[in-house]
Amino acid sequence: MAGGGPKTSTTNANTRKKKEVKKETGLGLSAKKDDNFGEWYSEVVVSGELIEYYDISGCYILRPWTMSIWEIMQAFFDAEIKGMKIKNCYFPLFVSPGVLQKEKDHIEGFAPEVAWVTKSGQSDLEVPIAIRPTSETVMYPYYSKWIRGHRDLPLKLNQWCNVVRWEFSNPTPFIRSREFLWQEGHTAFATKEEADKEVLEILELYNRIYEEYLAVPVIKGKKSEHEKFAGGLYTTSVEAFIPNTGRGIQGATSHCLGQNFAKMFEINFENDKGEKAMVWQNSWAYSTRTIGVMVMVHGDDKGLVLPPKVAAVQVIVIPVPYKDADTKGIFDACDATVETLTKAGFRAEADFRDNYSPGWKYSHWEMKGVPLRIEIGPKDLANEQVRAVRRDNSAKIDIPMASLVEQVVKTWDEFVEALSQKKMIFAPWCDEEEVERDVKARTKGEIGAAKTLCSPFEQPALEEGTLCFASGKPAKKWTYWGRSY
Amino acid sequence: MAGGGPKTSTTNANTRKKKEVKKETGLGLSAKKDDNFGEWYSEVVVSGELIEYYDISGCYILRPWTMSIWEIMQAFFDAEIKGMKIKNCYFPLFVSPGVLQKEKDHIEGFAPEVAWVTKSGQSDLEVPIAIRPTSETVMYPYYSKWIRGHRDLPLKLNQWCNVVRWEFSNPTPFIRSREFLWQEGHTAFATKEEADKEVLEILELYNRIYEEYLAVPVIKGKKSEHEKFAGGLYTTSVEAFIPNTGRGIQGATSHCLGQNFAKMFEINFENDKGEKAMVWQNSWAYSTRTIGVMVMVHGDDKGLVLPPKVAAVQVIVIPVPYKDADTKGIFDACDATVETLTKAGFRAEADFRDNYSPGWKYSHWEMKGVPLRIEIGPKDLANEQVRAVRRDNSAKIDIPMASLVEQVVKTWDEFVEALSQKKMIFAPWCDEEEVERDVKARTKGEIGAAKTLCSPFEQPALEEGTLCFASGKPAKKWTYWGRSY
Repeated sequence: MAGGGPKTSTTNANTRKKKEVKKETGLGLSAKKDDNFGEWYSEVVVSGELIEYYDISGCYILRPWTMSIWEIMQAFFDAEIKGMKIKNCYFPLFVSPGVLQKEKDHIEGFAPEVAWVTKSGQSDLEVPIAIRPTSETVMYPYYSKWIRGHRDLPLKLNQWCNVVRWEFSNPTPFIRSREFLWQEGHTAFATKEEADKEVLEILELYNRIYEEYLAVPVIKGKKSEHEKFAGGLYTTSVEAFIPNTGRGIQGATSHCLGQNFAKMFEINFENDKGEKAMVWQNSWAYSTRTIGVMVMVHGDDKGLVLPPKVAAVQVIVIPVPYKDADTKGIFDACDATVETLTKAGFRAEADFRDNYSPGWKYSHWEMKGVPLRIEIGPKDLANEQVRAVRRDNSAKIDIPMASLVEQVVKTWDEFVEALSQKKMIFAPWCDEEEVERDVKARTKGEIGAAKTLCSPFEQPALEEGTLCFASGKPAKKWTYWGRSY
Repeated sequence: MAGGGPKTSTTNANTRKKKEVKKETGLGLSAKKDDNFGEWYSEVVVSGELIEYYDISGCYILRPWTMSIWEIMQAFFDAEIKGMKIKNCYFPLFVSPGVLQKEKDHIEGFAPEVAWVTKSGQSDLEVPIAIRPTSETVMYPYYSKWIRGHRDLPLKLNQWCNVVRWEFSNPTPFIRSREFLWQEGHTAFATKEEADKEVLEILELYNRIYEEYLAVPVIKGKKSEHEKFAGGLYTTSVEAFIPNTGRGIQGATSHCLGQNFAKMFEINFENDKGEKAMVWQNSWAYSTRTIGVMVMVHGDDKGLVLPPKVAAVQVIVIPVPYKDADTKGIFDACDATVETLTKAGFRAEADFRDNYSPGWKYSHWEMKGVPLRIEIGPKDLANEQVRAVRRDNSAKIDIPMASLVEQVVKTWDEFVEALSQKKMIFAPWCDEEEVERDVKARTKGEIGAAKTLCSPFEQPALEEGTLCFASGKPAKKWTYWGRSY
């Protein structure tokens, strides 16, 4: 990939200088995604403040804008695997050469990329020590020690850590870097059936990270013998596709290692019949590469486009104070909007900086990919509305301030009150058509009759004993209500 | 510290063999804390399943029992610093020699311990690359780039990562290891006042980690010029004390770096008067050493003693099924106890393994330091009680099953029902003496009159509109009620 990353410090310095100029003039990206994808990508990750280039080639600084995405995915995945009774651990960064080379196919796959520590201070080490490119050979001697009988199985561990692969092909931020962050799960089972089942359960979690969190469609499947993990039995993966380059990209992998490592590392146990048996193992990992894939799929010529679920800031509120306008009123409205959204569970911020114009701020937050921009100017203030602009499709819509978030109501009085404030309403309902018609009839008047909008698929918990806001009968579901066109 | 860790692979192998024998016979620790503290410590961290020794000296495997302690402290600290608007980032593991050596005093402090990567695969690197012993010199060139004007300040970053210090003095698990996990915060301010203030705010968080989470008393203070951080202005620390060795131990440090690094790395900004100025910087860190200090302070000759707040398992429930006893009844009672405790927010588990005796299980969970053990045998079942045994002082107490956790009630009917089940009750109360007397009078009878026990200092939120369970008047506080001696 051309321009995928700086290869020498000269390139680095040039790139940096160019970036600085752009930053100061606010001109945005110089490369177009369709024209020069590689250059566009290395610009957008820097200008979007995900990455800073570093003075060692292939190493990148992950800025807070990246880390918040990473932490949101991590919170999801970590809770899911804890639910599967997988426990976190931390094994050392360093591997001794003998252990590293124990599994032949495996080390052949990784040997050319292994970084070696040979000195500490001024002294040479007695033997060089490798930095983990992955931790199979780091961990499995201890699996051999910890697993004795069938009651010690399954053994299911995971670690969140950094690994190092000193590749010499073009480094690219997130996608191919010499150090990266990941989780690596390593599990051992008494039977192949259990191992097979887990391989697919984990793959489905990777699928969910891409589809639910990063809004990137992926294909789940099995790798060919040629492409499978070095030393494993079979490899499954989620694969994404980058339309601009026409290239597939491996999103994450879940391997069944079979009994190959068990044989090399003597991971045996006494089964429930008192016979000696060998464990079945899996290993699986996803890394910060996920973020690079998301950038490649969603980004555009204005910058990053972040899916709302992983965006550190989901809504940016920007005051647009024309000369002679009620600046304080506008600022207060921005504050109130942030407060309303924050209370409703959105990650919202206002940009009150006085040394940048509204236009500069629009470009800045577009570059950073914030999913929704809200503008509040004098006209909006007068009309008690805000202007909302979507980052992904630039669609603009004016929204009454009162309707920014729905209001939860439990009683008829609250319902009438919220309706009079022109709000969208979320309420427990008995799900009876007659009651629905009755609500419509009772609210008919100046402001328009209220009707049901929808009952969302994702229903919040409905506590036992909750009553319908309108009929007082036991509620059956949560439903949105409002006036509609 | 004698026996603080294996120095050669021979020692390693011996230690491991000895451990294995002990594990299989279940004999517990061979060294006494008072007699041979060093040997006791290196045994207890292994037998308590916090640590596994590794085949590279000074590196240790952090097992799940350790990681859950680390993650609980991390969740606290991470939320606190995010509240202070400090953002997480991730800088590379590697440092180029030129940058590492930029600050003279600083590098003199760390140089002898720096591990150097000189090869990748079979090839020599053009220049050796250092592994971070700490990240001041890794980060500050970029602070220089990112900070231009006073509006870029303060810049407040933190990272959770591993660092490497290749020390040759006795390695000791958690306390002195060649790789360890920590957080390192690096902040830059326009004024010394802001920096000074943050130094102490962070120190107070370290104080809370030790006192609230690890139940270890520490002293907050300032280091001497001789002991301060290499290259900094002044260092504050929390210091713990290990009575058995009569030694103090540095718990965590919060440094004001002054402007020394700013000078070396040219971290300048234009202040609000348009003048060029230099930033004031802090750096601060706590590491997995915290866990070692906790083990040293609380552990005893039976093993670890974990403070409840950081214990992965706070209550272990052990069935004690004598011959001919109602085994199913006992197992069901154990299950029910775990469920009750879990619902009440405790981390509770039952140990149903059929290949270990209750006595073995007592020793095992004492070794692992679980704060409370609950035993349920035939007599307990008959009396509808459980036997609870505290890990820290071995105090035993029989508790009626119904009183295991208090019940929250909101109405008089719930109150009477809970009281008849011999429960301790937590209820919103109007705080009127007359009502208190009335409750006593109305409950007088066979099972004994209910009175107030106390209103806890730490009050849960009292939602607006909450009524007194007894009088129906607006509630003023949450109060415990029950029968008492």
